[in-house]
Amino acid sequence: MTESPAPVPALPRFGKVAFIGIGLIGSSLAQVMRQQGLAGHIAATARSAETRAKALALGLADSAPDSLADTVAGADLVMLCAPVGTYGGLARAFGPHLKPGAIVSDVGSVKQAVVRDVGPYLPEGVHFVPGHPIAGTEHSGPEAGFPELFRDRWCILTPPPGTDAGAVATVRALWEAAGSQVEVMDPAHHDQVLAITSHLPHLIAYTIVGTADDLEEHLMREVLKYSASGFRDFTRIAASDPVMWRDVFLNNREAVLDILQRFTEDLTALQRAIRWGEGDKLEELFRATREIRRGIMDYGQHVPEDVKMRRLRRGEDPAD
Amino acid sequence: MTESPAPVPALPRFGKVAFIGIGLIGSSLAQVMRQQGLAGHIAATARSAETRAKALALGLADSAPDSLADTVAGADLVMLCAPVGTYGGLARAFGPHLKPGAIVSDVGSVKQAVVRDVGPYLPEGVHFVPGHPIAGTEHSGPEAGFPELFRDRWCILTPPPGTDAGAVATVRALWEAAGSQVEVMDPAHHDQVLAITSHLPHLIAYTIVGTADDLEEHLMREVLKYSASGFRDFTRIAASDPVMWRDVFLNNREAVLDILQRFTEDLTALQRAIRWGEGDKLEELFRATREIRRGIMDYGQHVPEDVKMRRLRRGEDPAD
Repeated sequence: MTESPAPVPALPRFGKVAFIGIGLIGSSLAQVMRQQGLAGHIAATARSAETRAKALALGLADSAPDSLADTVAGADLVMLCAPVGTYGGLARAFGPHLKPGAIVSDVGSVKQAVVRDVGPYLPEGVHFVPGHPIAGTEHSGPEAGFPELFRDRWCILTPPPGTDAGAVATVRALWEAAGSQVEVMDPAHHDQVLAITSHLPHLIAYTIVGTADDLEEHLMREVLKYSASGFRDFTRIAASDPVMWRDVFLNNREAVLDILQRFTEDLTALQRAIRWGEGDKLEELFRATREIRRGIMDYGQHVPEDVKMRRLRRGEDPAD
Repeated sequence: MTESPAPVPALPRFGKVAFIGIGLIGSSLAQVMRQQGLAGHIAATARSAETRAKALALGLADSAPDSLADTVAGADLVMLCAPVGTYGGLARAFGPHLKPGAIVSDVGSVKQAVVRDVGPYLPEGVHFVPGHPIAGTEHSGPEAGFPELFRDRWCILTPPPGTDAGAVATVRALWEAAGSQVEVMDPAHHDQVLAITSHLPHLIAYTIVGTADDLEEHLMREVLKYSASGFRDFTRIAASDPVMWRDVFLNNREAVLDILQRFTEDLTALQRAIRWGEGDKLEELFRATREIRRGIMDYGQHVPEDVKMRRLRRGEDPAD
């Protein structure tokens, strides 16, 4: 991980910003731009007419064309905020309509596939700065967004080698304006780290909730009823956007399968320790994992108090 | 699950209550009793002199003998709040010193093993009402307790067939005074439901955090740094008390191994779907699990607002 050496402008200002996809993340970023006056005009497109209408009704966008060409025409910044599986097709369609000097960025949870799928369709003179804000909730859609989502979170940028330093600095400044801490990273390294911190946990949460779903009806009812202890945390993770996560797993296959293999080996070892009553082995592991929690708390990447309060007031789970 | 037919007294009052073990759960229950004046005298014992001294210093107990005999002598209610693996040895030691008519209860997370280990050591005329408050945090020790811990939580009682209905009603009234909803259940059924809602999630969280712990040092540092998305939830669960959880797995072996086997099969199927790029299968599962979350929210077993606020004020994670 290396810091970008470019100077950081105080606040980036864009004439026109184009959002392609305007769900939880796009909506939240648009709200940041609105609040701080970072965009002269925001255009947002989405596959469904309903979402485009919502983007206008919620005041997230000034225009909501159904054509990609109209959306990106004249835009200084194009933010891809759709499921990563759609990126290649989208880039092929909007690439020829980009303004020279435009910056194309994104918010996808995998980065090697984004470089692979989008890069080839961007014309010379357009700057490509892929990004990943590590923030989210289990809610989806434009109405789920709120401008504090990124505050005190990490945002990782993975610009290809040789990307214009000024363009990188501009995207960095945007995320800093949203309250995030920005790091620049190699896309392969990003995908490996996120496979462990995010993709595997989601896969496991989806699995365990799916396992419970296959139980007999009466048992399932009781599982729902007594879910407070442990299972409930998993159901929150497993309520995340289905299409987004499908695309994450399909597009970070190798890193996910690699860490999943390690996890399965470790789980099998624990299974064996339980079967043979090896209490010492269990206790030893459980003591070690408790220490890791302390390590994380030391990093202090908590949910900010005001975000917790907002979520509480909306009756939502205030933890991230 | 059947409701006890006995009438529920408004508030149970005990002359003397004995706590054997006074960690997070015991401390919280003692504080409930203090607040509502339910006990004339609280005696608490623990294996370590340090914990006994804390119980006195925190005002949880009026006396903190180091002998089990002195602790239970004359007690109307004996609450076992130690790791379930210790129950058999404890019961053998204190059984002969119980007052006729005393109620023995507990807070262990497994119930068949408790009936098996404690039952044989209780003399005729003593009432045995095993219990399990489904509440907790990842913190341990008497100083981690707080009296709101049980509010709006479930507490499951598993009295053996033929147990005195008055004794069951008294224990029920105690947990209702703590703010819990009480259900009476067969111990085997309890162990099966909890294996799914609590024991398997904890086992998996311990495993994934352990898997991460085996990564190379530089990668592990980054996993800690970027843990906000998914992994952090697991570390909180995996910070739970090591000895308590060791004993849970050793004492609910069959139910845990059974659900673990199902989980492993489901995970293998998902792994295969990722390897072969079967996006439809992934999306289908992810949509189903999202519905389950909605089912749970409908049950409304959330963290009470005032508990969330207390946790927030202490800088803790407010979710359960």
